[in-house]
Amino acid sequence: MDALPVLGLDADDTLWENGIGFAAVTSRYCDLVSPWVDEPVAKAALIETERAHVKDHGYGVKGFILSIIETVITLSEGKVTGSQIAPVLDWGRELIEAPIDLLPGVTETISTLAADHRLLLITKGDPIEQHRKVNGSGLADWLWGVEVVAEKNPETYTDVLRRHGVEPTGFVMVGNSLPSDVLPVLAIGGRAVHIPHAITWALETVEDEELEHHEFTVLDSFTELPALLAAWRDQG
Amino acid sequence: MDALPVLGLDADDTLWENGIGFAAVTSRYCDLVSPWVDEPVAKAALIETERAHVKDHGYGVKGFILSIIETVITLSEGKVTGSQIAPVLDWGRELIEAPIDLLPGVTETISTLAADHRLLLITKGDPIEQHRKVNGSGLADWLWGVEVVAEKNPETYTDVLRRHGVEPTGFVMVGNSLPSDVLPVLAIGGRAVHIPHAITWALETVEDEELEHHEFTVLDSFTELPALLAAWRDQG
Repeated sequence: MDALPVLGLDADDTLWENGIGFAAVTSRYCDLVSPWVDEPVAKAALIETERAHVKDHGYGVKGFILSIIETVITLSEGKVTGSQIAPVLDWGRELIEAPIDLLPGVTETISTLAADHRLLLITKGDPIEQHRKVNGSGLADWLWGVEVVAEKNPETYTDVLRRHGVEPTGFVMVGNSLPSDVLPVLAIGGRAVHIPHAITWALETVEDEELEHHEFTVLDSFTELPALLAAWRDQG
Repeated sequence: MDALPVLGLDADDTLWENGIGFAAVTSRYCDLVSPWVDEPVAKAALIETERAHVKDHGYGVKGFILSIIETVITLSEGKVTGSQIAPVLDWGRELIEAPIDLLPGVTETISTLAADHRLLLITKGDPIEQHRKVNGSGLADWLWGVEVVAEKNPETYTDVLRRHGVEPTGFVMVGNSLPSDVLPVLAIGGRAVHIPHAITWALETVEDEELEHHEFTVLDSFTELPALLAAWRDQG
């Protein structure tokens, strides 16, 4: 019998809510800096700080909280007090410790997919935070592997697939991010399914022209995935 | 020909200086909180904060900086200002961007060891930070593999060795930390070489009784390692 095909799955905002927690904290941050700047200025300043530091900080709560603290200090021209910053540290702990909120139908769909696929979770971010989420999701037993990478680009996908003995041409990746889950997988000859999420972080957007000449499938919901893959299989 | 034996190497404070940078930042932190508390109180408070958060924060600069900010706010009873906290964020960037300061003789010793070993770097901490250090060390070409783990315990060593097809009984680990590099490797049936470093972080110490009934070799310098391993080989 042939080995089951490998299906790559993104995690944050594909299997469970993630951006919604960051958005809630961003809203509290806007309240905190409201004595000094309006919300649009506050949001733009935070995104600029995050963009400047993502290479050093990576993706995850610790870097997000450090970016908030830095931006609050800058926007307040240093006038913010320690008492005002203290809650920001609590927000970080809340994000890290929040229970996993699976998207609708994910558990049933994962169990269906696991019957005829090897499921490889590929997520970027802080390994401690991501493994904690996997363990808290109740999905770990269905997964063939979990890979936490620093960036999702063609090089990291190539490396992950090689280490798992998977040919890119037979690989399908599923996720909510065009620049992280779709484009780099197409670039190495794989296939990709895009399942957009209502919340898209500014650093995960692409220009329309980057999507030209690329073929991938868009689904409304993770629950539609088994039917799509079955249709692909029937087409050979 | 048999495959070359696998030699595990710790990185921070075994191949290059690390604790010295954290110690310098700790000293600046003590200056920052000197209006409120004396140095011994300041140091003890920071270690307590780090200990409380290491499970969530892991090891690395981002968690260290967050712990400093939290401790400064606590010790100042919230009176510290944003202007006073701003430099702490710069200290973090300095730590992340600091050039790698290899310990004496490391490059020559690594090149010697690589001739008859597969060198597997096993380090804990933040993957982005640790890979940046490996790349900046000039040692990457000598290494067979680099593993960044969340914690160095018997389970993670077992997992790393299994993934690399290495039998624990034939494995030797070298490092400066008794709880991270020596004891967990002995626990899974491997051998260990302890090369103490002048700076030992409070969270990396063990009680004397934990060392009873354990056998491992202590060297003064990494440069003594090839001769030790050659002597072991000659003994069969």
